[in-house]
Amino acid sequence: MRTKKTVPDAVTRRLPRYYRHLGDLLEAGRDRISSKELSEKMGVTASQIRQDLNHFGGFGQQGYGYNVAHLHGEIGKILGITRDYSMIVVGAGNMGRAIAKHTNFEKAGFCVRALFDINPKRIGLSVRGIEVRDTATLKDYLKTDKTDIAVIATPASVAGEVADFLVKNGVKYIWNFAPADITATGDVIVENVHLTDSLITLAYRLNERETDK
Amino acid sequence: MRTKKTVPDAVTRRLPRYYRHLGDLLEAGRDRISSKELSEKMGVTASQIRQDLNHFGGFGQQGYGYNVAHLHGEIGKILGITRDYSMIVVGAGNMGRAIAKHTNFEKAGFCVRALFDINPKRIGLSVRGIEVRDTATLKDYLKTDKTDIAVIATPASVAGEVADFLVKNGVKYIWNFAPADITATGDVIVENVHLTDSLITLAYRLNERETDK
Repeated sequence: MRTKKTVPDAVTRRLPRYYRHLGDLLEAGRDRISSKELSEKMGVTASQIRQDLNHFGGFGQQGYGYNVAHLHGEIGKILGITRDYSMIVVGAGNMGRAIAKHTNFEKAGFCVRALFDINPKRIGLSVRGIEVRDTATLKDYLKTDKTDIAVIATPASVAGEVADFLVKNGVKYIWNFAPADITATGDVIVENVHLTDSLITLAYRLNERETDK
Repeated sequence: MRTKKTVPDAVTRRLPRYYRHLGDLLEAGRDRISSKELSEKMGVTASQIRQDLNHFGGFGQQGYGYNVAHLHGEIGKILGITRDYSMIVVGAGNMGRAIAKHTNFEKAGFCVRALFDINPKRIGLSVRGIEVRDTATLKDYLKTDKTDIAVIATPASVAGEVADFLVKNGVKYIWNFAPADITATGDVIVENVHLTDSLITLAYRLNERETDK
């Protein structure tokens, strides 16, 4: 597995897209696909696909293309989608609850086991059968319940503090939805999802165009 | 405004982060900040910041640094955050409703005016005072109500169809949350938010590390 270490981040970021497109093809009953068709579907060049997959040994056959089920399975293995991941969500506001309710994550093996909040009005609520617990019990929870990924869906003002607390209590993988940049320290890996930034990018494009008129 | 055209996408993508960090500083009562401190806060080099801002004329002063309020205001103008944007959300499931309820977007000037769904159980519901309407009325709505940005929060299977319908009826800016790649055609701009892809990237990191053990 030594080769994985050298995989560029841009390639890693494309893998989930390959996996998703191949899953769609699989559902549509496709057995195989040419690198040309796959490249058109994904909006990248066929040469890019070959280069990307060569990081993992390559899976195509000259003149045949790719076996959809095989490639889907192999990329799933590379991505680690062959197992389940336990998640907790800290912050049971609108975004936190929407994440807990999102069935697509569970379909991909990401199961929310518990939600945590400090607001007494939210504690005790059931979100798709998952109980909202008091954040005061988070430390004990992390001692007894294996947690692969913690989702931060708190206000920005406390997100950094929550991240520090989680890391101190053994969490290594953080998926952050709070509009604050949480930077990874030590061996912790953080994936920031900045929805407002994404929305503002769209506004910039709109504004740029209207100003040019 | 001709210069804007040449701004690289990577710079554009950093602008909302500058804006967010400067907003935090402003709220904390800061008047000015050195390029060094700003760079440390943002995790980019001071030279990068200068280069980025030079695309828009530059705003720093040698030996003084940046005036926080001025720079925040100027970047806000560049990004177009000085005005409000009307949004609609198509798909009033968990994610669509969470977006409509998310007060951060409204604070930044993005106001959800209406939600649409085809499910009779959802039609008529009120989400933070915003009515869920029948998708059958979407065409008429778009004729009478100016819509800057349409959010797609439908299942992946219908997302492409919904996008085509929106574009046909005059929508130019799409924020897509469905796990499908919607590609921009003509003068339409699409910003795809692939949450599952982001989560899988985190799983890949976890898996990569555990396999290396």
